[in-house]
Amino acid sequence: MGATPKPARPRGRHFFANPGPTNIPDSVLLATAHHTVDFNDPSFAEVYWGCVEGLKRVLRTTQHVFLYTGSGHAAWEASLVNLLSPGDAILILESGHFSQSWGRMAQEFGLELRTVPADWRRGVEMEAVRAALAADTAHAIKAVGVVHNETSTGLTTPVAAVRAALDATGHPALLLADTISSLGSLDFRMDEWGVDAAVGGSQKGLMLPTGLSFTGVSEKAMRAHAESRLPKHYFRWSAMLQRPLKSFLGTVPTSLFYGLQESLRLIEEEGLDKVLARHSRLAGAVRAAVQRWSGNDGPQLFCLDPSRYSDSVTAVLMPEGGDADALRRVALQRFNLSLGGGLGPLGGRVFRIGHLGDLNEPMILGTLATVELAMRVSGVPHRAGGVEAALDALAA
Amino acid sequence: MGATPKPARPRGRHFFANPGPTNIPDSVLLATAHHTVDFNDPSFAEVYWGCVEGLKRVLRTTQHVFLYTGSGHAAWEASLVNLLSPGDAILILESGHFSQSWGRMAQEFGLELRTVPADWRRGVEMEAVRAALAADTAHAIKAVGVVHNETSTGLTTPVAAVRAALDATGHPALLLADTISSLGSLDFRMDEWGVDAAVGGSQKGLMLPTGLSFTGVSEKAMRAHAESRLPKHYFRWSAMLQRPLKSFLGTVPTSLFYGLQESLRLIEEEGLDKVLARHSRLAGAVRAAVQRWSGNDGPQLFCLDPSRYSDSVTAVLMPEGGDADALRRVALQRFNLSLGGGLGPLGGRVFRIGHLGDLNEPMILGTLATVELAMRVSGVPHRAGGVEAALDALAA
Amino acid sequence: MGATPKPARPRGRHFFANPGPTNIPDSVLLATAHHTVDFNDPSFAEVYWGCVEGLKRVLRTTQHVFLYTGSGHAAWEASLVNLLSPGDAILILESGHFSQSWGRMAQEFGLELRTVPADWRRGVEMEAVRAALAADTAHAIKAVGVVHNETSTGLTTPVAAVRAALDATGHPALLLADTISSLGSLDFRMDEWGVDAAVGGSQKGLMLPTGLSFTGVSEKAMRAHAESRLPKHYFRWSAMLQRPLKSFLGTVPTSLFYGLQESLRLIEEEGLDKVLARHSRLAGAVRAAVQRWSGNDGPQLFCLDPSRYSDSVTAVLMPEGGDADALRRVALQRFNLSLGGGLGPLGGRVFRIGHLGDLNEPMILGTLATVELAMRVSGVPHRAGGVEAALDALAA
Amino acid sequence: MGATPKPARPRGRHFFANPGPTNIPDSVLLATAHHTVDFNDPSFAEVYWGCVEGLKRVLRTTQHVFLYTGSGHAAWEASLVNLLSPGDAILILESGHFSQSWGRMAQEFGLELRTVPADWRRGVEMEAVRAALAADTAHAIKAVGVVHNETSTGLTTPVAAVRAALDATGHPALLLADTISSLGSLDFRMDEWGVDAAVGGSQKGLMLPTGLSFTGVSEKAMRAHAESRLPKHYFRWSAMLQRPLKSFLGTVPTSLFYGLQESLRLIEEEGLDKVLARHSRLAGAVRAAVQRWSGNDGPQLFCLDPSRYSDSVTAVLMPEGGDADALRRVALQRFNLSLGGGLGPLGGRVFRIGHLGDLNEPMILGTLATVELAMRVSGVPHRAGGVEAALDALAA
Repeated sequence: MGATPKPARPRGRHFFANPGPTNIPDSVLLATAHHTVDFNDPSFAEVYWGCVEGLKRVLRTTQHVFLYTGSGHAAWEASLVNLLSPGDAILILESGHFSQSWGRMAQEFGLELRTVPADWRRGVEMEAVRAALAADTAHAIKAVGVVHNETSTGLTTPVAAVRAALDATGHPALLLADTISSLGSLDFRMDEWGVDAAVGGSQKGLMLPTGLSFTGVSEKAMRAHAESRLPKHYFRWSAMLQRPLKSFLGTVPTSLFYGLQESLRLIEEEGLDKVLARHSRLAGAVRAAVQRWSGNDGPQLFCLDPSRYSDSVTAVLMPEGGDADALRRVALQRFNLSLGGGLGPLGGRVFRIGHLGDLNEPMILGTLATVELAMRVSGVPHRAGGVEAALDALAA
Repeated sequence: MGATPKPARPRGRHFFANPGPTNIPDSVLLATAHHTVDFNDPSFAEVYWGCVEGLKRVLRTTQHVFLYTGSGHAAWEASLVNLLSPGDAILILESGHFSQSWGRMAQEFGLELRTVPADWRRGVEMEAVRAALAADTAHAIKAVGVVHNETSTGLTTPVAAVRAALDATGHPALLLADTISSLGSLDFRMDEWGVDAAVGGSQKGLMLPTGLSFTGVSEKAMRAHAESRLPKHYFRWSAMLQRPLKSFLGTVPTSLFYGLQESLRLIEEEGLDKVLARHSRLAGAVRAAVQRWSGNDGPQLFCLDPSRYSDSVTAVLMPEGGDADALRRVALQRFNLSLGGGLGPLGGRVFRIGHLGDLNEPMILGTLATVELAMRVSGVPHRAGGVEAALDALAA
Repeated sequence: MGATPKPARPRGRHFFANPGPTNIPDSVLLATAHHTVDFNDPSFAEVYWGCVEGLKRVLRTTQHVFLYTGSGHAAWEASLVNLLSPGDAILILESGHFSQSWGRMAQEFGLELRTVPADWRRGVEMEAVRAALAADTAHAIKAVGVVHNETSTGLTTPVAAVRAALDATGHPALLLADTISSLGSLDFRMDEWGVDAAVGGSQKGLMLPTGLSFTGVSEKAMRAHAESRLPKHYFRWSAMLQRPLKSFLGTVPTSLFYGLQESLRLIEEEGLDKVLARHSRLAGAVRAAVQRWSGNDGPQLFCLDPSRYSDSVTAVLMPEGGDADALRRVALQRFNLSLGGGLGPLGGRVFRIGHLGDLNEPMILGTLATVELAMRVSGVPHRAGGVEAALDALAA
Repeated sequence: MGATPKPARPRGRHFFANPGPTNIPDSVLLATAHHTVDFNDPSFAEVYWGCVEGLKRVLRTTQHVFLYTGSGHAAWEASLVNLLSPGDAILILESGHFSQSWGRMAQEFGLELRTVPADWRRGVEMEAVRAALAADTAHAIKAVGVVHNETSTGLTTPVAAVRAALDATGHPALLLADTISSLGSLDFRMDEWGVDAAVGGSQKGLMLPTGLSFTGVSEKAMRAHAESRLPKHYFRWSAMLQRPLKSFLGTVPTSLFYGLQESLRLIEEEGLDKVLARHSRLAGAVRAAVQRWSGNDGPQLFCLDPSRYSDSVTAVLMPEGGDADALRRVALQRFNLSLGGGLGPLGGRVFRIGHLGDLNEPMILGTLATVELAMRVSGVPHRAGGVEAALDALAA
């Protein structure tokens, strides 16, 4: 029905292997194309509450969820302003570009930023986390922030181990986890791991357009919220609780709930455990291909610690002198394949392959083969046979 | 493609005559069902910048526009936190529920709230606005907030007259206008009227789903922004300016831009002046119907001042003892017509007919006839012939 | 996603009150936008057989259904070529333009056409049908063709009475019924009424795009098929029976089955009896409006026999000298309302209001009010108050 | 919006590498989800005639085109019944399953079938075609039927050479070409090659759902049509010419024209020559992969003559004892890849990879890699490295 000219691209399906947002299944896309309804209409309420319950099952929580019209950054901000007060200290575990952004955000709200530094290719050492907590005998640290899956580096940080460090040191700080690129893709267990605020968004493992973000909130965090003195309105949980849907200040993005209803249905039809296993299997194929390409002088896995490999995104470090963005341009403009770029200091040196959400073998193999083709036509040194290696991994 | 059961409704097209969100044209709905793209992809940038230019034409500005993933409340909040500092005074012109909300938001951010009070059925007297400004000889008031079209009461406040009052009193305060339910429906001229921040959202006259909101910002406001000390991150304009798209912190809701591209095309195909004339014509038909229904003891136009009538929403006051929400339930559950309810103190006493966006004669006549049918089967006293009166108005 | 310019129309929802094709519910429209699947894929077969079963429930048959990629005319043709042989006689009951077309088609295939003539405003007299059958003592007539609901005149012919005439006269002819504009809108009972071939299409009461048509076929008709000698390939039932889906020669229009699955779900969610009752209620409102308009010199119901009124389409005869097509142009071009035109000899003298499929009170009232508005601005003489009369009918 | 449960499949995009129907671009799919319009509405006529003109450009004709609601078989049948009379002889050039079907159809309509036989792996020898024509000195043969691209065997027959044979022998027979799986994918030139009837459908190179088919018709064929005596109604060209749209008997499938408008826009945006070059490039990659797999005992290209290779479909002959359908089931049920099966005598021995329509490198590489994966997990003997070979071909 549309009628506005759009810029031309190469023909055929756009391959979106960017680590976020992610591919949206057709059925979800069409479900979001829902005509307008009143968010106070009882028939919407039924859809809505079903989604909230489903979201809790994906978060593996029975506690609270607050939702916002906003992107992942909105949910980060909501978590800080609802839980903390000016001058509070927050301890952020370094993992890459997004842990840095979260830290800067904290500073902009007048919080004291403390960091557990890390080599971005290896992630924080848990011993250093424990040490930082143990040293804070005055309990100035009110919250510990961990990015479960760092999209910029393809690195995970074990949230359960952070909880263990808090417990081991008897530290009462709240545990905040950014699950934006892990939820629905990697194993995450809010209640079991004692997470107090789990920050998520619609546009990754939930396979929706950008526009809906949320925080899973523990009872302990609700008590902290009552004491919080950072200014807020749009994100204020206590005000939300007085509204019929117990979330959102202002108009509710009803369209996205029709999509969320369908994406939760897809997840539960497959089974969350099988969803995670599929991510793990396809991620293994990606890493096998990259390791084949490496040879002596080819591109390498950015992450150096196999225990921290991400199953939702793989960052690939270009060979010395290689231009990741030039390679990405070839992939996009000649072959209609969108790869992620390097963020912050990794700009131009890293490209990223997203492998989360609605993904299967033909998609990932087509992506890997096209990366290899793009390297070939761009003259990026690499050992051939990446797809072969991926096939070996998948056939195993 | 979807597969999740949805609650049943009466068959046939859902008639959405709620004053917001509003009806989304099919072509816009389908345009938003766009597969995922990278917001840094050059082919998206072309769509994006075309939308920003189009949005400026609808705002009638050549200055700045900042966009957010968020609802209208987000854009309100963005305007306050980007322009003001703790302790600043803001003068809000009362118009109904939403002017009150804006005031409360200001207080939550530590601003000093001053109000020009008004009878909600008549709106502020401009003389009172001038007096309030003239009395502020110390220029403690840093901003004046006016809701151009108050969705809760169906009342407009003349923004140009507020500008005149500022000029007449030589007051340097910034002029902030909430155009959420006026933009693209009523005449609004940001630059000509000297508006410093124009707050808008996607889900009304722009005929899009909820999820995108924005502020048109004057050069004068940009200078105030540089001095502003309210804490902020997600909404910080100066940080946005350092990003390629000059808006948004975090992921960009690309889907909505494909829809916005189409809705701007529709507006410009028809011509903005004709869009406004159509709203005026259809609004006249609605008011004619309500006035016919009034008779001696029927429902009445809530707004008592014809010069303040809104052409995008009409609030209707029930007869003494009538239950607006019971009437709305009949309309929705028997006839698939969604009407707006009364907000705040008007709850249960008022229903609202939205008549903005993608609307024509059959839609408005079907709505009015169904309201009359619902009154009849509900036993709400009214004089018959509302549709006749509307036909008289439209045939004129 | 589309990008091709389309001709402009008045804004707002297109009101489609043409008697066919008909309005397609959004959920059906989106269901048809299904990606391509192999029609031999087992997961499609599941959808397919569910649709065939549902279609049988709407036809009220437990016998056979054959489906074609084609429009209603294809299903007509399929019924003739599968059942008859060159030189066979067919008796067509006159009802309007479509009964005439069916007769011409029969002649083009070398059949002998016999007709029970009728006044188009009253339909055939059942006595004349009985007489024609009784006169055919040699049983040269191999088939009797009846248009259950004649879309061109808004006239029904009682199929059960035709069966009674066959039985009363002991005539062995096959009973063929055109249910194109009755199925899913009017009461039709294939098995109970002894219909041997029931011809239907997707684009009316089944609320789908044009493209799928079908014949319900009795066991008796299957025996006749075995003897039939008219040439055929695309429509040959015996060849279809050898294919896995037992229908279709060549590629299957899979998209439409995803839509049909949804439209059958909608029909069964509401309940077929309630669907028919809704058609009857809304049709009554349309006739009430037209009768009010009639006055002394206004437009009139074309059908003069209340027992033959159609609940899916109303043909309206213009006042002497009135130009139905000029009125339709005003409705379409000024108000975005599409009305049906007069067919064959009724061209220019009749307009038709379709009221079948996905329809409710606001839609029908909006349509009627807009017809009245169009008559007013076009200067068509009429008594005002049509919508009032419709409201009276609906409130009763 | 949909709500009916659908059978589960593996997650991720369905890879449709069946040689027809074919992949539908999202923008085409959404364009077909167009609300109902009257096919006599002037705004539809504008869309319609634009499509007809575009279709002529793809056919490379300036003569006539007749369109049908129907599949490709309908267009075949339409071509026979509109051009021939009982007892006429037709000469069909053998190419595989579909040339056989066409022959059977001719016989069912009482035509005399003559065939130029061929080895299905090599196609007809043009010398044999010339001989058959030369032998027919009485010109009993009224039409020569050639399948330009035989979907069942992945074999092309050079239409221009058939024209040359007719010219060389001075034979006046009409030249009928089945372009169903070649149009928009392979070079086809109706006027330049003197084709009298070019049979096509929507669901292949035009990238639309099944439901629309058509015949390009020469002036010479129009003269033959005037003499034709096969019975017909639904497909009768002379009757179509009396209708406003000059095609279709009965309701027009308007939805598909909104889709066709978009698919023609896509083809012309890319440029037809580039569309064909893309098909050729991707087909080369497919053949390179199959040839690598062949090794000593692996699957082989079914077509043995490189000059007859099809650029829109490749048939692959399984190794001795291999079960093509078992392999296809693994591809579909484990990896969500749909491959075509063997037709007629090739059932179980051949699988087919469709590579036509909206296709690019990542899609074809993903398909090939997944075929290799499916062979591996199914134990089908093959030499590894098919994707490598395809990359070599594409990088060249």
